[in-house]
Amino acid sequence: MEPMMLRLGHEIQFEIPAPVAIVALLNVHPSRAADLRAPDEVQVEPALSIKTFLDSFGNRCTRFLAPKGTLRLRNETLIHDSGQADPVAIDAREVPVQELPIDVLRYLYNSRYCEVDRFSMIAVELFGSAKPGWSRVQAICDWVHTHVTFGYQYARPTKTALDVYTERFGVCRDFQHLAVTLCRALNIPARYVTGYLGDIGVPVSPSPMDFSAWFEVYLEDRWWTFDARYNEPRVGRVLMATGRDASDVALTTSFGMANLTHFTVICEQVTTPAVATAI
Amino acid sequence: MEPMMLRLGHEIQFEIPAPVAIVALLNVHPSRAADLRAPDEVQVEPALSIKTFLDSFGNRCTRFLAPKGTLRLRNETLIHDSGQADPVAIDAREVPVQELPIDVLRYLYNSRYCEVDRFSMIAVELFGSAKPGWSRVQAICDWVHTHVTFGYQYARPTKTALDVYTERFGVCRDFQHLAVTLCRALNIPARYVTGYLGDIGVPVSPSPMDFSAWFEVYLEDRWWTFDARYNEPRVGRVLMATGRDASDVALTTSFGMANLTHFTVICEQVTTPAVATAI
Amino acid sequence: MEPMMLRLGHEIQFEIPAPVAIVALLNVHPSRAADLRAPDEVQVEPALSIKTFLDSFGNRCTRFLAPKGTLRLRNETLIHDSGQADPVAIDAREVPVQELPIDVLRYLYNSRYCEVDRFSMIAVELFGSAKPGWSRVQAICDWVHTHVTFGYQYARPTKTALDVYTERFGVCRDFQHLAVTLCRALNIPARYVTGYLGDIGVPVSPSPMDFSAWFEVYLEDRWWTFDARYNEPRVGRVLMATGRDASDVALTTSFGMANLTHFTVICEQVTTPAVATAI
Amino acid sequence: MEPMMLRLGHEIQFEIPAPVAIVALLNVHPSRAADLRAPDEVQVEPALSIKTFLDSFGNRCTRFLAPKGTLRLRNETLIHDSGQADPVAIDAREVPVQELPIDVLRYLYNSRYCEVDRFSMIAVELFGSAKPGWSRVQAICDWVHTHVTFGYQYARPTKTALDVYTERFGVCRDFQHLAVTLCRALNIPARYVTGYLGDIGVPVSPSPMDFSAWFEVYLEDRWWTFDARYNEPRVGRVLMATGRDASDVALTTSFGMANLTHFTVICEQVTTPAVATAI
Repeated sequence: MEPMMLRLGHEIQFEIPAPVAIVALLNVHPSRAADLRAPDEVQVEPALSIKTFLDSFGNRCTRFLAPKGTLRLRNETLIHDSGQADPVAIDAREVPVQELPIDVLRYLYNSRYCEVDRFSMIAVELFGSAKPGWSRVQAICDWVHTHVTFGYQYARPTKTALDVYTERFGVCRDFQHLAVTLCRALNIPARYVTGYLGDIGVPVSPSPMDFSAWFEVYLEDRWWTFDARYNEPRVGRVLMATGRDASDVALTTSFGMANLTHFTVICEQVTTPAVATAI
Repeated sequence: MEPMMLRLGHEIQFEIPAPVAIVALLNVHPSRAADLRAPDEVQVEPALSIKTFLDSFGNRCTRFLAPKGTLRLRNETLIHDSGQADPVAIDAREVPVQELPIDVLRYLYNSRYCEVDRFSMIAVELFGSAKPGWSRVQAICDWVHTHVTFGYQYARPTKTALDVYTERFGVCRDFQHLAVTLCRALNIPARYVTGYLGDIGVPVSPSPMDFSAWFEVYLEDRWWTFDARYNEPRVGRVLMATGRDASDVALTTSFGMANLTHFTVICEQVTTPAVATAI
Repeated sequence: MEPMMLRLGHEIQFEIPAPVAIVALLNVHPSRAADLRAPDEVQVEPALSIKTFLDSFGNRCTRFLAPKGTLRLRNETLIHDSGQADPVAIDAREVPVQELPIDVLRYLYNSRYCEVDRFSMIAVELFGSAKPGWSRVQAICDWVHTHVTFGYQYARPTKTALDVYTERFGVCRDFQHLAVTLCRALNIPARYVTGYLGDIGVPVSPSPMDFSAWFEVYLEDRWWTFDARYNEPRVGRVLMATGRDASDVALTTSFGMANLTHFTVICEQVTTPAVATAI
Repeated sequence: MEPMMLRLGHEIQFEIPAPVAIVALLNVHPSRAADLRAPDEVQVEPALSIKTFLDSFGNRCTRFLAPKGTLRLRNETLIHDSGQADPVAIDAREVPVQELPIDVLRYLYNSRYCEVDRFSMIAVELFGSAKPGWSRVQAICDWVHTHVTFGYQYARPTKTALDVYTERFGVCRDFQHLAVTLCRALNIPARYVTGYLGDIGVPVSPSPMDFSAWFEVYLEDRWWTFDARYNEPRVGRVLMATGRDASDVALTTSFGMANLTHFTVICEQVTTPAVATAI
């Protein structure tokens, strides 16, 4: 597709029964900063003192103390997108662990929802004889995509890759957790991603829009986008945050009670690069 | 006790059936660099090209490709120690999440062996009414120390904090994982530590020496040492590595088969600061 | 309340993609046979050769091979009910294991959703000092009722007592599994029950009717009804099946694919003991 | 081999800190009663009032209240054995669920250590295309035997089939739990067995003798012996108890503290059918 402009944003509302600290990852990832065509600032109501920072994974975060009452988080911006689908590089090779960049190593380890230690033999049995490199990662995506059934009713906060592997039902995050874990169990660095993924170049989904999850794999000399949920190259992904798994990149983490009462997300192509408007 | 000199080191041997990448954390932590009185360099036999680096937690690491055959890792050094037991600061307060230093935040989250999300209610029920701050952390240590029974036969690589909570048996690492998880579930930053802990000022243990695990908690304005296994201030801890849990700070992580055939650790007081000798 | 007549029944429909064996527990329990005022026979459409039998727990079961296509199971009957609420006997004592009737012993053991072995210490810590007997069981019900939040969205087929204990959300069956497990961990025999529970003498629930789950505890010299979900004596329970846990007493167990497409349950007081009519 | 006489027995000692009820399964199974050539009575010291009974699975059980102090359980008997190895019937067919004898059905369900519900897809993926009947069960045994490594250090009381499947280490009971679960997930009835298995016709094991576990599968018209641990027909198995899994057939179940201090088992061929003597 042609280069395009995307309008994206969200509006999230909580009822807060008592003051509570919140960390939010509601900005576009620094790697896309140059593509922004409008400010990308989280607006918090009521007005609060907020702190913005980069976390240990390099994601843009916002921290604040939410007072008792209604809390509204909003952000809407415009971003330029290449219009290119996720690149495919079927010759990209696996990098031996001893040659990986140092900062990539941590994506080989266990994490809360990715029990690499419980998948070592399963991963080898399923994919040990697949052709190393891109093909092997694609085989993992194909397997997860085929063997797991999507359904919003199967979401739960504590579901791990092993749960997904035995239950075979899940949401976006569950597909990616299982694929990430299988990659790591084969010594292929993999990290979890959250971001915007509009229905660009595909039929519009009847469900309300939500944030999406996909994952990245380090092959050859860089990170590549994979998505065990949709399992086809897509146009218009906008990366927000990467981490070891969903626990690292929750859109909002509340350190106490916060009841979600409203939630909308948009991500759509705009033909005229209009001024961002309220959603 | 008086300031003292500690001789410490290890010798670890593997049989390697096929070339395998290994990452090792076998150095003293950078925070203790100024105390070293002899070189602290991992010796690898056979001689290999090794890469040393700091990981994302700030630990000194070594990476190399081990060839087929016998692999021997050794390190022995001398370190000056204050002779002071772990400090106690019963007035140290809990820091509200919105005031924590940014780089401390990640120690509030879930990790592989610390399922914070499954302990939120349990932690509140057990310790929600304890006096916040040092007293609460001490109450957690007391509880874990009293309710979990130590035994080497209870070690297993996949044991999580929830397993420890239900089984009530474990080794060092299990005690600390449970305590760390309970702290985090109460929004108190806690991180896992591995290091040397000799029998200094306490009766000599009849078991062969091993590396030890303890944990650190962020209170007031710094990290403090706690140990749910021994649960008393000790002299002569030498920190090697900190991380979210044992998965982050394994002494050696092999990305393939490596069969441990020999393992010795020493950590003892030396009256004359002698030249380091072979163990 | 006065003695009364209850009309109860269900209609369940499946789409069967390929012939599949089904075992159903859709009759009133033999212990209530004398109260029946109309036939209690499962009607299967299409007409099939069915086998009825008592399982190892004494429940009335039906087994058949469902052909490809639509399968409809219906049953409707009339039963006389005492109108009395669940009896309360606050002096009922716990029976020492060595004095329990032999056929009660099996309700002390582990089962799929009741991991008694993982609750031994937790149960003692929570209820070890409660007054033995009825009071202790009531304390368990009170705790589960208070600490677990009901919601249909929290149902899942593999959820165990330990999951309920950590997640604190669930449906009927989850409340009872946790309470059953805590009882057994204290050497109090407890078994899982499914049956009809209409809104008799209580406000009518806005949700569509469903089968209900409760549990029974052996104290003094008999089994007593408890219900950690509602946690108050109720009128009009009609027992269908008892077992170790939900796995033993599923309304229908399909040994292959069977997609549920329709499901209604009724249980209501009828003033005139009318002839049973279609629902 | 020729018909033979086996001498078998055990001596188990506990230290009991406070009176505790115990249920023991320390007799030969009723199905072997006709082969007994000496009394098969559990001797309890001190002398206690004991109750013997058949449990719901048909096993001979003993129940008593053990007083504070040392408890010794002994039994030694002689049994005639055919000398025939476990029969092999490669044409034995799987029985469709709708044709299974009623009392066999319960061995299709979930139990504590056999999470059939978490293996439905895994079992189909691994063995769905294997030839039904004996061959499929043998394929399961071969797989478990090959993919799981034996080691006493891997035993733990709470280990389930799923744990064995992911960890790939275990003792007898773990091999059988995994094989039993895979069978049930394919709708093949399977039950867990404990009994004596001497080193008859095979090299004598250097380890002290222990009770053994194997499993039985219902094919064609009867139960057949399988053993995923040794995975070869053996001579001289003496069945003691069958159940859904190890939880049902523990040699001793203590309803409170009982510390095992001594444990010996014998099972050996005797050339002269001697009078049973003390072990």
